[in-house]
Amino acid sequence: MARNTSLKIARVRAEGRTSTAIIRGRRVHLVKGGPLGSLQETGDIYPMSQVELLAPIQPGKIVAIGLNYYTHIGDRTIPSKPEPFLKAPNSLIGPSSSIILPPNAGRVDEEGEVVAVISRRAKNLTEDQVDDYVLGYTCGNDVSAREWQAGDLQWWRAKSSDTFTAMGPWITTGLDPEAIDIEVRLNGKEVQKASTSEMIYSVRACIAFITSAMTLEPGDVVYTGTPGATSQLSAGDIVEVELGGIGVLSNPVAAG
Amino acid sequence: MARNTSLKIARVRAEGRTSTAIIRGRRVHLVKGGPLGSLQETGDIYPMSQVELLAPIQPGKIVAIGLNYYTHIGDRTIPSKPEPFLKAPNSLIGPSSSIILPPNAGRVDEEGEVVAVISRRAKNLTEDQVDDYVLGYTCGNDVSAREWQAGDLQWWRAKSSDTFTAMGPWITTGLDPEAIDIEVRLNGKEVQKASTSEMIYSVRACIAFITSAMTLEPGDVVYTGTPGATSQLSAGDIVEVELGGIGVLSNPVAAG
Repeated sequence: MARNTSLKIARVRAEGRTSTAIIRGRRVHLVKGGPLGSLQETGDIYPMSQVELLAPIQPGKIVAIGLNYYTHIGDRTIPSKPEPFLKAPNSLIGPSSSIILPPNAGRVDEEGEVVAVISRRAKNLTEDQVDDYVLGYTCGNDVSAREWQAGDLQWWRAKSSDTFTAMGPWITTGLDPEAIDIEVRLNGKEVQKASTSEMIYSVRACIAFITSAMTLEPGDVVYTGTPGATSQLSAGDIVEVELGGIGVLSNPVAAG
Repeated sequence: MARNTSLKIARVRAEGRTSTAIIRGRRVHLVKGGPLGSLQETGDIYPMSQVELLAPIQPGKIVAIGLNYYTHIGDRTIPSKPEPFLKAPNSLIGPSSSIILPPNAGRVDEEGEVVAVISRRAKNLTEDQVDDYVLGYTCGNDVSAREWQAGDLQWWRAKSSDTFTAMGPWITTGLDPEAIDIEVRLNGKEVQKASTSEMIYSVRACIAFITSAMTLEPGDVVYTGTPGATSQLSAGDIVEVELGGIGVLSNPVAAG
């Protein structure tokens, strides 16, 4: 299937089997192979209500960017370069799965973000080349334990406690990464609102910078930073990350 | 095969095929399946000279510990808890592969370490339980770019530039993690020497602490910290990490 039109590529569980799928309206068209493959349709079609949406890809590596919106920086110094960090792949959860608050973590916040999905092995890219290495974009929540983030030497558990990396509902292709609207809602109330046009370092600049030191592999994902002020999560909350042209990632919050 | 005797479990390339193997003296006995499997021998045996040793496991996650020997801390504060950080799995290289110095990184040092290989899914372990979740230990080199480590927000490229995580030559089972001797040599000259008995937080304490926030999966590895002062690597160097009861991990250093 041609990739130059906009597609919504999902991973779903339907009748007990996990499959890649193309979403068209409220219909889920199963395809052969993974999301990076040829997306050949099997002919099996389900209504959305009969499938469970999973995290749309299983990355080998999750790289995220810190301090990437002027509105998020507060009184901190504006970074002189993108500031990546790593998240552990098995902190990943999909749409509707619960974000678990660790009992001893103190304050835990949401961070709504645009997530880029890498399609091809990438090293030493220029910004101009990046689009050819990105399959598409999805919604992400880079859940963050603020006391651990401040008190630990590195952000391992602040950013990678189990369930701290939410992603979904699907990967949308063909978007301009410099013009994606972000809105985050906590229990229906808007708590973050921005556009990727307000980033300090663009999505393309961030990905190119990462590849100056680190090879990105097919299926790796890049969380591109969060705008504005974030909010504390409590058990029972519902947190939604909505991206223009993609959709809504919704996760409940539960006590650990 | 019983696991209560000491085994050396390797991953090798022999006659173009990659296989798990048991090392006995200078002979390499191929086994079916992966290093976490039943280790049933196939009957194929090679002399060591005819196989290439690979990194003995392909971890989904690499966790490392910072500041874990009194002799490495210098004038920094002794941490009040283990201080983990993440390394990217595709920075991993095996024995004999080259450590590549990034052209713009400045000073890059070796860090010889004991590496624990996780055998079973582990969450919220007590120290007493850890041994039941560790397959064995291998030699590691947590290669570190010191200027990036000091100047970046997080240690992503300082610790995870391509080739910055060396591991091997095999996993040895049945060792006491609190009594492993470490010696690191640069071009044959001793540059680090210690015992894991000198750790601030024991291997068991570190692994238990990691699992308080993060599930460890089978095949994940934990780099347990480096002792003393480290040395700058230059193109053309050979760096060796020797651990008592295990063997020697040797890697050449090359310019990027």
